[in-house]
Amino acid sequence: MTARTQGPVRIVGAGLLGASIGHALTALGVDVVLADASRSAVSLAVDYGAGRAANAEDAPALVVVAVPPDVTAEVVAAELAAHPDAIVTDVASVKSAVLRELRAAGADLARYVGSHPMAGRERGGAVASRADLFIGRPWVIAAPEEAGPAWRVVEGLALDLGAAPVRMDALAHDEAVALVSHVPQLVASLLAKRLLGAPDAAVGLAGQGLRDTTRIAASDPALWVQILGANAPAVAALLADYRADLDAAIEALAEPSAAGARRSIAELIAAGGAGVARIPGKHGSSRSFASVTVLIDDRPGELARLLTEIGALGVNLEDLRLEHSPGAQVGIAEIAVLPEVEARLVADLTAAGWRIGAAE
Amino acid sequence: MTARTQGPVRIVGAGLLGASIGHALTALGVDVVLADASRSAVSLAVDYGAGRAANAEDAPALVVVAVPPDVTAEVVAAELAAHPDAIVTDVASVKSAVLRELRAAGADLARYVGSHPMAGRERGGAVASRADLFIGRPWVIAAPEEAGPAWRVVEGLALDLGAAPVRMDALAHDEAVALVSHVPQLVASLLAKRLLGAPDAAVGLAGQGLRDTTRIAASDPALWVQILGANAPAVAALLADYRADLDAAIEALAEPSAAGARRSIAELIAAGGAGVARIPGKHGSSRSFASVTVLIDDRPGELARLLTEIGALGVNLEDLRLEHSPGAQVGIAEIAVLPEVEARLVADLTAAGWRIGAAE
Repeated sequence: MTARTQGPVRIVGAGLLGASIGHALTALGVDVVLADASRSAVSLAVDYGAGRAANAEDAPALVVVAVPPDVTAEVVAAELAAHPDAIVTDVASVKSAVLRELRAAGADLARYVGSHPMAGRERGGAVASRADLFIGRPWVIAAPEEAGPAWRVVEGLALDLGAAPVRMDALAHDEAVALVSHVPQLVASLLAKRLLGAPDAAVGLAGQGLRDTTRIAASDPALWVQILGANAPAVAALLADYRADLDAAIEALAEPSAAGARRSIAELIAAGGAGVARIPGKHGSSRSFASVTVLIDDRPGELARLLTEIGALGVNLEDLRLEHSPGAQVGIAEIAVLPEVEARLVADLTAAGWRIGAAE
Repeated sequence: MTARTQGPVRIVGAGLLGASIGHALTALGVDVVLADASRSAVSLAVDYGAGRAANAEDAPALVVVAVPPDVTAEVVAAELAAHPDAIVTDVASVKSAVLRELRAAGADLARYVGSHPMAGRERGGAVASRADLFIGRPWVIAAPEEAGPAWRVVEGLALDLGAAPVRMDALAHDEAVALVSHVPQLVASLLAKRLLGAPDAAVGLAGQGLRDTTRIAASDPALWVQILGANAPAVAALLADYRADLDAAIEALAEPSAAGARRSIAELIAAGGAGVARIPGKHGSSRSFASVTVLIDDRPGELARLLTEIGALGVNLEDLRLEHSPGAQVGIAEIAVLPEVEARLVADLTAAGWRIGAAE
């Protein structure tokens, strides 16, 4: 595969994202030069094969700024000034604040294209970096009006890395990530905080619902302070609506037999169901799959044996979730398949001796 | 296996829970008689093998009331009166309100033991019923003081069904399920509701975080109105604390550069992290597992092939989660293993040609 991206590519910030981009481009034969405020971070990323250390003679065609959100605008401005022939992009998870700071600083926005690879994991460092990090992930490209065709260079970068480019302006991006990432993070933290003072016996009743709703609460406070601070207006706007609905729920529960209280709760639950139905499934579709639950003994190879049989039946697994209950030596595999194969799969697995659990 | 439970067992309510209990007891050779306000529901459950239809001559040793929460107390009272030699239990997901109503009605509480099998799925009907539904799940037993040793009969029932009995008083139960089930449900609904008016492009950026935090929002409004209404005080108390923290977050985001604002957000995220760390993992322990991410092509048998290799390496899978990104033809399997086998697993899988993704 020939890279769309022309080198040298200068990557500033040799953490998880920067080093992962370096790995992927290096694998494509692109000349990658690495810079970081920490010299040891550069050495580490070079050791891991993410590129070579930058020197004064480098004349980058593209600069990728992969530093913490707090300092992104400042570093982008410096790179635009230092490399007047280069296109500069950044990978920060907020876009409007960066653009606003660059405008205020009088930066050359004809050569700046903001971007945000939705690579999921926000922690890591070069040690955790992988060329595969971006495969199949959305990569938002938010070019200012001044940038003209420069966004195509960043689109090429995203495609080179196996990501799916999505064009959006900075404000739309920030509102979108407030909705799909920043508010969920806060809500999960607010919910998980309730567990702090709870009795062990209560926490011991936790099931998959609580696990799912709080999983992302295990996040890095220092990073999230920056992200939430930089996207405060979009997050606050959503939280204001959220609080209004929360207040209505609290009011209804204060007197659950009052006129309208039950209806208020029912409408909230129904609205949540309608909202969650909007989330696209696999392959970008919102097609719903049939769910088959299979009980599996908790020993090595059992799940593999199950999935081997499913594969032998020619059935493609659309999704899979394992559930465990406290104290149980048996697991539950919840398997999503196309609805048209569900009945056959259940029949065949039952015939093969698998215990099929209750359908949802 | 000999059943601990003495029949006949009368099950009132032939829905998912009632019919599943009937299946399991019938399989153990216990005489099960089924009753339901709907005659066709009884016929269906009988057809499915959950027991036989009740008649006037039945003299049950144990009555299990498995009707909606709204009518549970009323049905329990009627069963206590109709079967003066039987112990009566119910399986409603709220316990204090039922007990309070029974006390007010002057029911014979020496023979009543409340219970709540945490069987996860709240929807279904007899069609979805399975004898395996309760295996490995906590089964809360909430006996009033008046009940004396009657709780042992319900403990025997739970054990017969493969569940893990947990004794708790009604109030502690209700506070526990408010924490681990009812508040998470409301919070997920409140969050998912935000998606209703959002642009398609924004919802299209949804990742696993949003999917997990909103999954349980797809729930039955009619059932949840009953559950939340019956447990309103415990839910409202938690929501009041939640709102206070939400208010603090909104205030901090209103002026994120103000003194104390960043600290306020950081403390919230950190508290959420500490809270989620309290949730027990598999086998009731809170031991943390190492996570290995493997990229798999999206075609039948690939995941099975991966898991077969893992099994062949003698490594037990503690948990597994599949992730898909919109539009991607590649999946990501996130595998939890004991920390001491992580390095060997990564090395062996890499040697076998698997692409290992970035660690969290």
